[in-house]
Amino acid sequence: MVYNFNGGPSILPKEVFEEASRAILDFNGTGLSILEIGHRTALFQEVVDELRVTARELMGLDAEHEVLFLHGGASTQFFQVPMNLLNQDATAAYLDGGEWGRKAIKEAKLFGTVEVVASSKDKNYTYIPKGYTIPPAAAYFHYTTNNTIEGTQMHAIPETSVPLVADMSSDILSHVMDFNRFALIYAGAQKNIGAAGVNLVVVRKDILGKVQRPLPTMMDYRQHIEAGSLLNTPPVFAFYVCMLTLRWLKQQGGVSAIEKINDRKAALLYQTLDSLPMFRPTVAKEDRSKMNVVFVMDDPELEKSFLATCKEHGMVGIKGHRSVGGFRISLYNALPLESVEVLTELMNDFAHTKA
Amino acid sequence: MVYNFNGGPSILPKEVFEEASRAILDFNGTGLSILEIGHRTALFQEVVDELRVTARELMGLDAEHEVLFLHGGASTQFFQVPMNLLNQDATAAYLDGGEWGRKAIKEAKLFGTVEVVASSKDKNYTYIPKGYTIPPAAAYFHYTTNNTIEGTQMHAIPETSVPLVADMSSDILSHVMDFNRFALIYAGAQKNIGAAGVNLVVVRKDILGKVQRPLPTMMDYRQHIEAGSLLNTPPVFAFYVCMLTLRWLKQQGGVSAIEKINDRKAALLYQTLDSLPMFRPTVAKEDRSKMNVVFVMDDPELEKSFLATCKEHGMVGIKGHRSVGGFRISLYNALPLESVEVLTELMNDFAHTKA
Repeated sequence: MVYNFNGGPSILPKEVFEEASRAILDFNGTGLSILEIGHRTALFQEVVDELRVTARELMGLDAEHEVLFLHGGASTQFFQVPMNLLNQDATAAYLDGGEWGRKAIKEAKLFGTVEVVASSKDKNYTYIPKGYTIPPAAAYFHYTTNNTIEGTQMHAIPETSVPLVADMSSDILSHVMDFNRFALIYAGAQKNIGAAGVNLVVVRKDILGKVQRPLPTMMDYRQHIEAGSLLNTPPVFAFYVCMLTLRWLKQQGGVSAIEKINDRKAALLYQTLDSLPMFRPTVAKEDRSKMNVVFVMDDPELEKSFLATCKEHGMVGIKGHRSVGGFRISLYNALPLESVEVLTELMNDFAHTKA
Repeated sequence: MVYNFNGGPSILPKEVFEEASRAILDFNGTGLSILEIGHRTALFQEVVDELRVTARELMGLDAEHEVLFLHGGASTQFFQVPMNLLNQDATAAYLDGGEWGRKAIKEAKLFGTVEVVASSKDKNYTYIPKGYTIPPAAAYFHYTTNNTIEGTQMHAIPETSVPLVADMSSDILSHVMDFNRFALIYAGAQKNIGAAGVNLVVVRKDILGKVQRPLPTMMDYRQHIEAGSLLNTPPVFAFYVCMLTLRWLKQQGGVSAIEKINDRKAALLYQTLDSLPMFRPTVAKEDRSKMNVVFVMDDPELEKSFLATCKEHGMVGIKGHRSVGGFRISLYNALPLESVEVLTELMNDFAHTKA
């Protein structure tokens, strides 16, 4: 048995793997592989339609918001967002809450002025900055909802009249929220949406078409909207895996149902960590992420030994990011509660043996 | 039995489908799906290394050329190339030989001056322009080696001192050529390289770093070179399918071996078309593509009837592009000679029945 706690690419539902594996040999009884079907066929259009409709439904989007699926990962959106939304003489407000936000800031500076409203870099991004002011004239306010590497999460949407732009790569569709409050949302698929190589982008149409710079066709959200995400040959298989994953999520009861399970997984793991002094969560309690649980062990020998024990028990993807060290346990939608139960039992056993 | 003549995404080797299908359930005996493994693991690094080494070997690249695998398709390269190579006050020379070249020209104009050295638009791109002069001061000369939609192909590399840039999406690795003569080559994977959602880019290092504009990180070839194509989370599965496809090509004996089979496929199909007056190839004889064979039938009723007959016999992907009409038969590397034999027999039978 393997327990996959990878930070991304990460575990997807077993049913998705099984269906995708079959479709590589024979897609929907056509005798053709999903890898060799034309992207302009009625067959594939059905996949795209179900993908779009299911995404809209799971997020409860209104008519002002469009859903796109685009090549690349969130790193592409780091520059595509300001390219589409930020004039050279305008200012965008950014929150510096982690490694990914920092990278987004770097790219935005190529397109206009960036005002960093707050940063938690002083404490290695172990908390979410609070009490900042968003300049009301900003073109938009950008933040990362969940910091995959550092294990922090924003638990509320900021109150502001400035258009909200969020990188939701690592917690989208994991809990109920009002997605319609955002002007633009983007998320690399490889956590809660599907396989790597595609981005989900949600955009409120009225914020587009306001920049003066000419946009390359492939970078222009409006062109992708018009073409229904089929402006060029899409990553066909990645689309298909996303469609299967969102279909699965809908079958589970949607976002509110998965949120209940996600809450139980996170609660169990944090309670276990808090009860065992050997393990030390690194993040401010109120900002703890329910998707990525980060902790260290102060004794390097014990840390090595616990890592080895986990490996023996089939656990993978538990090492912390090199910038943080220690451990990172990712609890994305597809991770069963049982995996957390097995891990926490192991923690308890380990702590009592070594105490 | 299904015969897949799709223009792209298109047929891949049966062995690739089988191996990829297995890897979705269990990648190399890890108990993990290829879709859930980390892209920074030793396991995946092996995939990336084999992919890069095999691509280099199949193309016989020298040490001055780097191989990259990047998110997106050729449409992304239409703007990424001039963004990296063309200063705003400089001129690039482009050949307007088909729909894709025309699109590349449109994007390049956003970044500098474009001089179109010749065009075959006057005859609906049914021939390759010849006898043009490439301005010696041009930053580079861009052309499309094979026009997927129109069915023309350049059968020689232009003689010029200007750096050559080529879109080889639809004929790369189909025949022997001196890839080292190019400053930059790009190709969407979904014909001869693998699955959609990834680009092969070959670049001679000395042409980089000469533009004044600041480049977004994800658009900068130099950053991708430094990161070994792992600057961000790559399209993991698309990389894997490319690796399997190139491994298969190497096992077939490489490019020179596949070229012999490709030559036989194209010869058989063109000979059949030339022998049956009912079918009319649309392209100038000397410019015929060995990858995409385009023809029409002058009688619309016969055309409908032949299309229906082909469908009855399990043939898919044979309809011509909407801008050309008629038929397009794609003969990419993975298409077996047998498929062409079955098709040409059908043509002969049909012509004799209806004559």
